[in-house]
Amino acid sequence: MPSNYIALNTLKFILNQVHGLADVLKLDYYSDHDMESMNLFLDAVKDFSDREMAPYFKEMDEQPAHFEEGKIKVHPQVGVIMKKGGAMGLISGIFDYEDGGMQIPMMVHTANTYIQDCANNHMTGYMGLTLGAAELIIHFGDAALKAAYVPKMLTGDWAGTMCLTEPEAGSSLSDLTTKAIPTEQDYYLLKGQKIFISGGDHEYISNFVHLVLARIEGAPAGTKGISLFVVPKNRINEHKGLEPNDVNTAGDFQKMGQRGYCTSHLMFGENNDCRGWLVGEPHRGLKYMFLMMNGARIAVGRGAAAIVMAAYHASLEYAQERVQGRKIGKLGKKKVDSLPTTIINHADVRRMLLLQKVVAEGSLSLLILASKYKDLSLHAKTPEEKEKYHLLLEILTPIVKSYPSEMGNIAVSNGLQVLGGYGFTSEYILQQYYRDIRIFSIYEGTTGIQSLDLLGRKATMQGGRAIQLLIEEIKQSCSEATKFSDLTPYTSMLESELESFKEVLVVLYKLTEQGKFELFTADANHFLELLSLIIIAWMWLEMANESMQAIQKDEEPHKEAFYQSKIHAMKFYFNYELPKTLGHAKILKNVSGLTIDLDREIFV
Amino acid sequence: MPSNYIALNTLKFILNQVHGLADVLKLDYYSDHDMESMNLFLDAVKDFSDREMAPYFKEMDEQPAHFEEGKIKVHPQVGVIMKKGGAMGLISGIFDYEDGGMQIPMMVHTANTYIQDCANNHMTGYMGLTLGAAELIIHFGDAALKAAYVPKMLTGDWAGTMCLTEPEAGSSLSDLTTKAIPTEQDYYLLKGQKIFISGGDHEYISNFVHLVLARIEGAPAGTKGISLFVVPKNRINEHKGLEPNDVNTAGDFQKMGQRGYCTSHLMFGENNDCRGWLVGEPHRGLKYMFLMMNGARIAVGRGAAAIVMAAYHASLEYAQERVQGRKIGKLGKKKVDSLPTTIINHADVRRMLLLQKVVAEGSLSLLILASKYKDLSLHAKTPEEKEKYHLLLEILTPIVKSYPSEMGNIAVSNGLQVLGGYGFTSEYILQQYYRDIRIFSIYEGTTGIQSLDLLGRKATMQGGRAIQLLIEEIKQSCSEATKFSDLTPYTSMLESELESFKEVLVVLYKLTEQGKFELFTADANHFLELLSLIIIAWMWLEMANESMQAIQKDEEPHKEAFYQSKIHAMKFYFNYELPKTLGHAKILKNVSGLTIDLDREIFV
Repeated sequence: MPSNYIALNTLKFILNQVHGLADVLKLDYYSDHDMESMNLFLDAVKDFSDREMAPYFKEMDEQPAHFEEGKIKVHPQVGVIMKKGGAMGLISGIFDYEDGGMQIPMMVHTANTYIQDCANNHMTGYMGLTLGAAELIIHFGDAALKAAYVPKMLTGDWAGTMCLTEPEAGSSLSDLTTKAIPTEQDYYLLKGQKIFISGGDHEYISNFVHLVLARIEGAPAGTKGISLFVVPKNRINEHKGLEPNDVNTAGDFQKMGQRGYCTSHLMFGENNDCRGWLVGEPHRGLKYMFLMMNGARIAVGRGAAAIVMAAYHASLEYAQERVQGRKIGKLGKKKVDSLPTTIINHADVRRMLLLQKVVAEGSLSLLILASKYKDLSLHAKTPEEKEKYHLLLEILTPIVKSYPSEMGNIAVSNGLQVLGGYGFTSEYILQQYYRDIRIFSIYEGTTGIQSLDLLGRKATMQGGRAIQLLIEEIKQSCSEATKFSDLTPYTSMLESELESFKEVLVVLYKLTEQGKFELFTADANHFLELLSLIIIAWMWLEMANESMQAIQKDEEPHKEAFYQSKIHAMKFYFNYELPKTLGHAKILKNVSGLTIDLDREIFV
Repeated sequence: MPSNYIALNTLKFILNQVHGLADVLKLDYYSDHDMESMNLFLDAVKDFSDREMAPYFKEMDEQPAHFEEGKIKVHPQVGVIMKKGGAMGLISGIFDYEDGGMQIPMMVHTANTYIQDCANNHMTGYMGLTLGAAELIIHFGDAALKAAYVPKMLTGDWAGTMCLTEPEAGSSLSDLTTKAIPTEQDYYLLKGQKIFISGGDHEYISNFVHLVLARIEGAPAGTKGISLFVVPKNRINEHKGLEPNDVNTAGDFQKMGQRGYCTSHLMFGENNDCRGWLVGEPHRGLKYMFLMMNGARIAVGRGAAAIVMAAYHASLEYAQERVQGRKIGKLGKKKVDSLPTTIINHADVRRMLLLQKVVAEGSLSLLILASKYKDLSLHAKTPEEKEKYHLLLEILTPIVKSYPSEMGNIAVSNGLQVLGGYGFTSEYILQQYYRDIRIFSIYEGTTGIQSLDLLGRKATMQGGRAIQLLIEEIKQSCSEATKFSDLTPYTSMLESELESFKEVLVVLYKLTEQGKFELFTADANHFLELLSLIIIAWMWLEMANESMQAIQKDEEPHKEAFYQSKIHAMKFYFNYELPKTLGHAKILKNVSGLTIDLDREIFV
């Protein structure tokens, strides 16, 4: 089991100092909370994660969820977590008091689930999807649905799932075929199958509440004809007891990673007796689902970022202890008679550790910022502010989801490399993190989908307003940081990145004006990478700026090394990661069309 | 089992047309071979790989090698392959006739083992290490050692291994502690343990011939005191029978990938009765080992390149069959009433496939070129030519080893991504390739070690002569390609990359002049990446040039689509991969020292 999977001081630095949780807590909605209670809550979650989650991380990989005699077997701790986590408010926390919640800010919710993700990423999805399913019912279901399902979900007695994907409809939801047949009762009869249903079934929970996308018979084709249903595994009968609802489990997908987290194949209505209750209005299911999608995508980015953090600490611990080789001397020779050194003193190992650090902490900072935007978009004082932060959240979301996932693969790979041959063996945990993180760039819309969302939708909406707001926010940070002369070289670099980015936008917007939409989005992945690099630079500049201020105030002299380490990491990011923008900008400006030239047979 | 793991036409195009196997066959040493016999040989190997290797690929992963009751269990097909492969000359092929070989060119050896690697990378190491161990005995052992061991190794009756790594000495061989105690007989008594010994023990081979690095008692410290020994698992007794030689197996490392390929932990001389025979002279063991290292590192690059190729074909096959989503129309809308399309028509999928293709085929081309250099370094007509090609091989080797391994991880990851969620499941083979390829950047010297070798040793040797020769070769190719006006934009790009690379060299060489050796090598990994990108561009320019010539000759009109696809891939590489050089060059020119600043505590 990983002994040290997170730096809580860094999490609190980012949450409290860099992104100012206190400001959010001043909003009326959060008035019952203060900094002390929130930080105690995080400490309690860390303690819970140490005891209940981290110890089962390796076991869950070694004893994967699997299908046996018509049922899915998972680790028994899954049942424990649901009940104990439910009791701690880990499922209900973000909801309104009237819905059984605690009204904690999304910033704190992200921070607390991040701690859990760091401890055991195979476990957190069980609670996370229950939360997501409950959220859909709370927001769009009627009072009867809410009363029937939500309370037991928030306590962790029942679990929730999201049923979107079908064998022939993955990213293309408009093609889904699960049918909902109206009846004369208050329910529909569901028929169809869903795959890749995370947390979809197991023996430690008495009921599963599936949120199912389906097409009401006779509904229009495409995404407009899709409705959302609550389809419990066991329906509530007239005596308030449970009876089977013709939802059957056909299998569990065996996976390369996250093996403790079951991925079910569910059959609805094989015996024409599967009842589903409509959520909200007919034909609006996909809209409801997408209104919740920012949250789901933040959750995916959070899981990936947490794995990067945990892997970083595992390889850091190894590098600090492993003795191997000698320092390169002034003359370029390694002296045989000198003592071997711990590998953390080799430049290439430091490079790999610094890369992990900047991706881990940069991603975390981005996640907390996006969560703050979510809080402000819901509870800021004026409608104008709400709209502004909503737009900022919209433009950030594809990056929040994709950067930790994509760069996470690279960062964790470097973490594995730090251990050399040992990193590839099952004795060490790095290989597990490497396998686990690979799914995050696929979950909830692949990076390809996120790139199209960012460039094809978010970057053009309201005439590019979201992107303008974002650029203004970054410029604001640059201007604040210039008060420290040590930071001015970096503010200049970031400002010049913004100028170069604007040049790219000009080239791209021209393509839309010319109606060349396929060409416009052909290099969307490079656009996402480019903007991601700039945004993480912004995160690091903010961390360095906050660190400079803290050092200047000199109130915590014992923490100076901590603050200096953030400034050093910022410099590393600007010197070693940010230059990648040059390549992406060149690709985007040089519109080649080489990937959309379909008339040519290019794969012979 | 993967149905289609290699494009043999591309392999033959690169071997025969791009790198001119015929020219090498004209050398005296190869006079018994001709193009027809070599191509028939490759066809036979493809047939052998189809029948004997590919069908066991998935099984070997699902039933990993493991330690049980003091023995390592591997897939029974391992024994079959050794015997059948030995009989086909797959172990002996490259050796001299007088040593039992077939004198086939390294170019052809690389091509044939590459086919096998594509079919089943868990299997090929068993033969490959036997070849490597035999090579050491042939080159440096005396006549008695050769007679005693080599014949049975070349037939695959006995297997060979390389025993370098110890628990406390991985990359740092100077610290190894295995002892060799002289006796009054012709042998030494060996004592020590070795780990990560690939193919080190199993039940399907009657004897293992370990080539062991050890320190003769009283030898000087460091690398200069290391000698090389033949240490058989079973020694030959006076009756020419076999008796146990006190070599015991302590375990088998369980790994994330290449699970069918055992990785043993061996104990030598636990009972003080382990005899080893010195190879060559005392204290020269590491030198012998490193004289063979170019070959071993080419073999690692080959394995990685093969996995990229096989993964590319697996995801290409999927993309050509899987129907999902709709083409983006002229107006940027996906029409719901249009028919769904195969995913190969989506720009982002094409991008991922093209990336795989350029990495796979670019790597293969580089491997064949390095193999040609090896052939010419041994058998070219003049000493001057031999020296020239030896230097070219030296400078290329770290890149041949690292580029396919490092970019291979990225390429295969893209291959997995093409399949979406399915790519992460055990139902599809991509996840296996993804796990398998991860070890190649660690085998035979990590990428960090390769980078130091490239910049710290190869780029400076003989005053930088190797790098000058390389630049001349690339310029020569550019100048040949300018005869096609379609290629001139690309020759200009490559020439300007060379100019920028030279500017980087000036900055770096200045650091050595100033005695700042640690700073000089601190960013060696970026130097390796930069030069790799240029070299693969060169490979693609050569492929495009050859394709233009073939199209112009018009002798094979049915193959025009094939040649056009190479030209298209070249353009993709130049437009989408080559721009990454900008970032690396910027990093290298801006010498920051951020990874060697050891006085500062940066990981708090």
